[in-house]
Amino acid sequence: MRPSKYSGLDKGTISLGLAESDFDIPKEVKEAMVNAILEGRYHYEMGGVPEFLEAAVEKLRRFNGIDATEEEVLPTVGAMNGIWLSYKVLLKPGDHVIVVTPTYPPLIERPKSFQAEVTEVEAREDWHLDIEAIEKALTDRTRVITICNPNNPTGAVYTRDELEQLAELVLRRNLYVVSDELYEHLTYDGKRHVSIASLPGMRERTITIFGFTKTHGMSGLRIGYVFAERELAKRMREENAAVVIHPGTIEQIGAAAALKCDSYVNSLRDYLQKVRDKLVAKLREVPGVELRPPEGTFFAFPNLSSLFESDKEAVDYLLKVARVLVYAGSGFGKGGGGHVRMNFCSPISIIEEAADRIVRALTRRSAP
Amino acid sequence: MRPSKYSGLDKGTISLGLAESDFDIPKEVKEAMVNAILEGRYHYEMGGVPEFLEAAVEKLRRFNGIDATEEEVLPTVGAMNGIWLSYKVLLKPGDHVIVVTPTYPPLIERPKSFQAEVTEVEAREDWHLDIEAIEKALTDRTRVITICNPNNPTGAVYTRDELEQLAELVLRRNLYVVSDELYEHLTYDGKRHVSIASLPGMRERTITIFGFTKTHGMSGLRIGYVFAERELAKRMREENAAVVIHPGTIEQIGAAAALKCDSYVNSLRDYLQKVRDKLVAKLREVPGVELRPPEGTFFAFPNLSSLFESDKEAVDYLLKVARVLVYAGSGFGKGGGGHVRMNFCSPISIIEEAADRIVRALTRRSAP
Repeated sequence: MRPSKYSGLDKGTISLGLAESDFDIPKEVKEAMVNAILEGRYHYEMGGVPEFLEAAVEKLRRFNGIDATEEEVLPTVGAMNGIWLSYKVLLKPGDHVIVVTPTYPPLIERPKSFQAEVTEVEAREDWHLDIEAIEKALTDRTRVITICNPNNPTGAVYTRDELEQLAELVLRRNLYVVSDELYEHLTYDGKRHVSIASLPGMRERTITIFGFTKTHGMSGLRIGYVFAERELAKRMREENAAVVIHPGTIEQIGAAAALKCDSYVNSLRDYLQKVRDKLVAKLREVPGVELRPPEGTFFAFPNLSSLFESDKEAVDYLLKVARVLVYAGSGFGKGGGGHVRMNFCSPISIIEEAADRIVRALTRRSAP
Repeated sequence: MRPSKYSGLDKGTISLGLAESDFDIPKEVKEAMVNAILEGRYHYEMGGVPEFLEAAVEKLRRFNGIDATEEEVLPTVGAMNGIWLSYKVLLKPGDHVIVVTPTYPPLIERPKSFQAEVTEVEAREDWHLDIEAIEKALTDRTRVITICNPNNPTGAVYTRDELEQLAELVLRRNLYVVSDELYEHLTYDGKRHVSIASLPGMRERTITIFGFTKTHGMSGLRIGYVFAERELAKRMREENAAVVIHPGTIEQIGAAAALKCDSYVNSLRDYLQKVRDKLVAKLREVPGVELRPPEGTFFAFPNLSSLFESDKEAVDYLLKVARVLVYAGSGFGKGGGGHVRMNFCSPISIIEEAADRIVRALTRRSAP
């Protein structure tokens, strides 16, 4: 079955739109889910499926450097459920949230459902954290700072040093961090993902959102998890019990298997680094295209503002002339305008074809 | 795997507690889910899995007498998600909700999350709707009347006549009904389930909650659906997109198969009627036990108030002396006190053993 990123598109159009993988989910996940069905593991599991909690604790220790207990891991109905729950337990009406942008739109929008006020603080020109700007945006009512690391859509992978600076601010002002780390496994050029919750003092001040939708291609399976300290996790568990009871057991069992698929994740990362290099090299051929190679994620986020009046015009042009679907950067908040997001989690042949079409279309546009 | 209703219990204890079936899910559901995994159907399906929507529309027409479009069916992460969404879209702070009790506790509790006020209106002595009492409880701020039909925990199956009286009130006062119909298939003695949304004028004034957790034993699969008219369904879909995106595709495919399992449902209902008859006959042997045979659902709800100071004392006594877990009726709202709920969705041999133990324990208690 084709990912839904192709839905509604002409047969000849390539989708670099919706953030879905073109690759099949790990076979270990499929096997685990089929076995779970055959073994009849489809009854309530109020506390979470034990093997999922256990695998998550092990992975948090090994990969994220976070020492968690099983009570501090909450299975969620995908990352969206984790985002909603994080803001639900942290915010009350009138609270203030700083969101570093460009970023995944629900991270900006959701606090407003809880009558909180949002300030978007743009990343620096190199897409890294602008600590000074964040500090300036603080008010007496600021409760949460939200980051997406590695960043969707810019591909920035925050360094330990800048996360330590952010942590210092958070601890000094008694704030919380909501950290969306869905792309944690996809970092290039030997860069290592650092979870802000692993820094001293930060495990009590951070809710971290993890998932399987992106790297593992498990978008329709609706499973993710959050790490939060015991009391926060307990409140999130209670809130979710009233909204969905808990995520499906079959998905939790699949997710437990996914957490052990290191070779799948490593192969994908190595492959995507080649895809990224190819895409970046091609796009940079075009005069007027500005593109910082993404340090992580599966997105390129070129600036096309010297070629188009607006990013929406660029999207329409590329869909019509290159027959490639990309997303407008202005949808990702302050600092995204003028850019477009290209999802390159596809076979290299597809990305080469898409890149060739885009280069041809843009070159025609940029010719004097 | 044993249903979670047994978790935490001694090996020799029988659970008539949590509302789970002891029977395996339909084999067609298992096959459909395994095939869905093998066919790779685990990508986003933003509008719902087409075959689930189609099967639900067909079943609503055939079984419920409701003429629905696919846009009016919303897949949910179990019935709990449907309850939450119903109140979320219908209520604003200060609204008033009438809930007919005894009933499923979340139907009473959830409106309070949206700062609405709840009045519990007791059913009549025969557990049917007390229309006069409902009318008396109406205020200028009343927005919703909530029913559970067939009723958990009393087993009442509301007649067309009483639902028409309720509908008349709802239409006259421009109210909405939230109708939890999870036990729609389990009605005994030839009684037929009537969906209030099928009555004239009521499809626009009702949100109906359906599920697979009970009759089909699919508790851990977290799938259900609601029927609501187009505009309400649209708002519920938007709300849920922000909380979970959508329920898992594998469960939706399983649910589509479940909607076609008429023979499973019919066999279960015929079997449970025998189980009910046996349980009711045994319990009625005990002096002091008052029990109206349930017209539907898989619960018996005897009144033990002549034997115990409180229903909680009855629960403790039966767990200790009879080694049978039952639930205290006071947990189901006004009118439930003094009763206990017994889930009889188990093989008849287990219910006979449980009934024998309960009868012995209660007889000892009631002896002068």
